[in-house]
Formats: sequence, structure tokens, C-alpha cells
Amino acid sequence: MNKIRIGIVGYGNLGKGVLKSLKLNEDMELVAIFTRRNIIDIAPVEKGIIIDNVDNINSYIDKIDVMILCGGSAKDLPVQTPKIASYFNTVDSFDTHALIESYYNTLEDIAKKSKKVNIISIGWDPGLFSLIRSINMAILPNGHESTFWGKGISQGHSDAIRKVKGVKNAVEYTIPMEDAINSSRMGNINNVTKENSHLRECFVVLDGTREGSLVEKEIRAIPNYFDKYETTVHFITEEELEKNHNKINHGGYVFRTGYTGNIDNPNKHTIEYSLKLDSNPEFTASVLVAYARAAHRLYIERNYGVKTIFDIPISYIISESTKNNLLNEIL
Amino acid sequence: MNKIRIGIVGYGNLGKGVLKSLKLNEDMELVAIFTRRNIIDIAPVEKGIIIDNVDNINSYIDKIDVMILCGGSAKDLPVQTPKIASYFNTVDSFDTHALIESYYNTLEDIAKKSKKVNIISIGWDPGLFSLIRSINMAILPNGHESTFWGKGISQGHSDAIRKVKGVKNAVEYTIPMEDAINSSRMGNINNVTKENSHLRECFVVLDGTREGSLVEKEIRAIPNYFDKYETTVHFITEEELEKNHNKINHGGYVFRTGYTGNIDNPNKHTIEYSLKLDSNPEFTASVLVAYARAAHRLYIERNYGVKTIFDIPISYIISESTKNNLLNEIL
Repeated sequence: MNKIRIGIVGYGNLGKGVLKSLKLNEDMELVAIFTRRNIIDIAPVEKGIIIDNVDNINSYIDKIDVMILCGGSAKDLPVQTPKIASYFNTVDSFDTHALIESYYNTLEDIAKKSKKVNIISIGWDPGLFSLIRSINMAILPNGHESTFWGKGISQGHSDAIRKVKGVKNAVEYTIPMEDAINSSRMGNINNVTKENSHLRECFVVLDGTREGSLVEKEIRAIPNYFDKYETTVHFITEEELEKNHNKINHGGYVFRTGYTGNIDNPNKHTIEYSLKLDSNPEFTASVLVAYARAAHRLYIERNYGVKTIFDIPISYIISESTKNNLLNEIL
Repeated sequence: MNKIRIGIVGYGNLGKGVLKSLKLNEDMELVAIFTRRNIIDIAPVEKGIIIDNVDNINSYIDKIDVMILCGGSAKDLPVQTPKIASYFNTVDSFDTHALIESYYNTLEDIAKKSKKVNIISIGWDPGLFSLIRSINMAILPNGHESTFWGKGISQGHSDAIRKVKGVKNAVEYTIPMEDAINSSRMGNINNVTKENSHLRECFVVLDGTREGSLVEKEIRAIPNYFDKYETTVHFITEEELEKNHNKINHGGYVFRTGYTGNIDNPNKHTIEYSLKLDSNPEFTASVLVAYARAAHRLYIERNYGVKTIFDIPISYIISESTKNNLLNEIL
């Protein structure tokens, strides 16, 4: 059996996670890693794996089946994906919720000509959590949905703090409130909102140009990111930040409580889905790798175009060896 | 917009649940309920809903888009489904795990000629739990899987007890052990098996022809059902059984713990999915109704054949009105 030939674009934490995940999937092989950095700056990964500059990517058109795009959603993917999607099947983890629709439309225009498969916004949120939320809503239309994130570092919130004048570096932890989780678990989620069910804990290194109290005041007032949340700000040294706040664990919960039966005396049902992740990038990478399998299969079937996690049957992410057990063991 | 026209075959607890669930889904309408019983024995349901004998089902070929089959897996579905699948799109909850593959093959032969869509084994297990197990295995191939059922009544186990000589009636509760659930939640699931993580609690009414101790001994020895489980047997009266053991609540858990990264010092990830259901039949019915939507869409697209939950993109079970929010709210 021919293995699915994979390329990794971007070799940060996520790209490294994909490299590791591919070793656990025998039906795939890594062909090359593409980077914008000087390729001699990257330590040799392993024998047989090419490291090349992303500018040379088009010389791999016949050598790679699926490119797994591991760049960031803020700056990398909006630029890289349209270029690469013209020539390759791709999977990415684009996660800027507010821009997903326009990102989708941009790629859809490209996919009409390119006849490739481009799977977007794969990971756990957006990704698995989105899938669970949509199943939940379809099955229990009369109900309440709630999602909790954390405890874990939010890159978006950390970035927002770093833009405040007087801040040298910062890390933000999103922490779900236990009471709100327990209410949701019991099905009492009427008053739970994203804002009243998460704490935002900030660790900030000052650059010395501005008083801490002013920096703190400005952080607390950042619209959407902090203004409606219970926020704590701690000032620490750069050394403390590097030593104590480099964790990559994360997680979260999706709940739905729904009602069926007689309106006067309905039956209550609660669905709970949760993740506890030692490594956010390695888990996200594992989801990307599974959906790279789907991209390849859809391409073989000439089912081209932009796809989200909603469009793909689960049988497409399952390896051929596991597939034989679907009917008689997993079902 | 034309509503999807639904027929219900079999009007027990599950069929009644489908009737209620359809009211929560505005894109579907119930046309008729089919029964094997004398139709005048069934209380009138509602104005405009036809109740007819299942023998007349073929006169509804142009009037119903999808038949939701609500019969039992032991005796009803193996006989009914092949007949009905020749003329209608169907969704069923066939749940005899050991026979699913042969059931699938029987229907596959029929579907080749009929050009209909037949979705089988829909519900929560088989069904949602199967879907979660397969996603989990695809994402974390290096890991352990565990499923817990209960607390709830198992019809299969209750039936097995009723076949024992000297038993007039019986109910069996499957109860997952808290310790095993907690071990799985912590990711320590190496030693957890189905057999050592569930209790089987039996409430038995004797018919007076045989000594209780002999009946109990025989129950405990029933292969697969009880012989490898911690089992308790209580003898009660028929009145107690009817009064105290008519609950329809159920639930369960699916866990996967998987490892990524360096083999020597891997990162651990735990995925937990759980259901707490006030009414097993109403929740199962809600899943069937969502997949009836998928059956109709697949039929419109001429994507005929036997399908399982693994074959169907989640976008197919989502109502058109919710679909508009997929990209900008749910993803």
C-alpha cells in the first residue's frame, strides 16, 4: 500500500507536533518540512526528511499528497494558504473565529480552479468542539449550549497584553470557573455566559517605561478581551515568566442540556464532552494529521473544494487498518 | 420549503419518542404511524396523523420520504427492515452488535436494486458512542479506549433472565463502577475491562415453580451476560417490580487516553464523552430523527445505499436554519 506523502509547512510547536504524530500513523510518511527561516538554522530532523525553504514548495507538486499548514492564524495562514492551496491539498488550523467565513470564501474561489481539497479550521476549537456542538444542536434542538476553555494559555489574549504600552512580555491563562462547569454538568446553564464563567489571569513583565497601576488599568479595559471578565494581573520578572509560564497544557468542556417529551414535564438530557491535554500543540497536530488522511481520500474521489469538519464523514479520518473493525468492533 | 415527510413504524416507547421529537424539528412532519396491532386499539394520537396497519405501508410510497423504524432489534427489525427498505428510505436503531455486519450485508443487497438510503444502528450505543470511539481512535492511535454504560436498565440482560426457568418477570440494571470511571478519567485505564467495571443488579419475580437459590445460581452462570460480572439478585413481587423498576433513565461514558510526543516521556491526553439521559427512548428517538434528515438529503443527492453513522457528514443531520450559522457561530 502506498503511504500518504505529507509536507509540513511551518516548523514551530505545531509543526513539531505533526512530525511526532505522523510516527504514530503507519499509513503516512513525512516527505519534507518547509520553513521561512534560513534552512541551515534548523537542526537536522532525521535522515531522509528534506528541509526546504517555503519559496521552493512548488517543486514538490508531484512528491507530496497533502500539505499540513502549521503557521499562525494571525499572520501566516491568511498569506500562505491561498498560495499553497492553488497547488496542493491542504489541512490547516485557522482559528480566528470572526474571519473564518471570509477565509473560506477566499479559498473557495481558488479551489474552483485548482481542483484540490482544502480542509480548514481543524483542531479542537475550532474543530472537535465545533463538531460536538453541531451534533448536540441537531439532536437536542430544544436546549442550551455552553463551552469552557482552560485552564490554559490563550495566545490571542497574551498578544493583546503585549501590545499595551509599558509591557515587555506577558502570558494570559484562561481559567473556567468550577461552579459554572458544575452548573452546566447538572443541566442548570441558563445564566452561564462565556464572560461570567471564565477568569483571566495575567502575568506581565514591565519594560520600565510606565507605572504598573496604569498598565493594569489599561489591560482590564481592553474591549472583548478583558473588559467583561474577572481579571487578575500579576507583575513578574522576565526570568519568572520564562521559568514558570511555559506550559503548553490546555483543555476544555462542551455541554448541552436539552429537553424532550411533554412540555409541562419534560425529560432532561445532558451531553458532556471534555479534553484534558498535556500538550495543546501535539493534540492539535494529531487532529490535523487525521484530517490529512481525509484530504487525501477526498482528493482521490475527486471531491474537491474547501471543507470544514462538518463536511467530512468520520470514516474518512480512520486508517484503512482500523476501518475493517468499524462494523464489528467499534459500532 | 417542503417539510420532510416522516413515517413511524412501531409505536412503543421509541415510536412515541419519535412523535415527540418531531415536534421540536420544524423541517419535518409526521404523516403516519404504522403498527402491527389492531389500529383501533391505539388511542387517537392527534388530528391529521394517520394510524395504519404496517401491512398497508406500501400504499404510502409517494407520501412519505423517510420511515423511522422503531421496532426491537431481536425480532422486529431483522424481519421488517428488509421489506420496508425495498420501498422507502429508512433509519433504524438496530443494536445487536454481533449481528450488525450480517444485517448490513442483507440490506446492502437490497439497496443495490432499490436505490434508497438505509441508515442503520443509529442511537447512542451503537450510534453517538460509536462515532466518538472512532474519532478518538483516529486522533489518538496510541491509546486506550473504555466505554461504561449505566446506570440503566438493559433490555437484553432483562430478557436473558426472563428465559430462566422459574422466572416470571425480571429487570436488570447495568451499573458502572465509580472507581473504574475515575481511573479512566485520570487516564489510568490499562486494567479496566467491561467485565470488571460494571455491576449487574437483578430484580426477579419468581413464578413459584422453582426454588430461588437455584434460579439465582442459573442467572449468575449465564455465559457472557452474567458469568464474568459481579452480580446481585433480589427477589421481589410483581407489584414491586411494576412500581419501582419502570425507570427509563440511562447514560454512559466513553473515554480515550492517548499519548503523543517522545516515547520516553510522552504527553498524555484524555477525551471524555458522557450522556445523562432522563429518558433512554426519547433521547434515542432524537438521534433517529436527526439522521432521518440525513437520509432524506442523501436520497435527494442520489447517494443511495446502506449507511452507518461513520459514513455521514455532520452537516447532513443539521437543519437548514442552523446550517447558516455553522461557519460564523458554531465553528
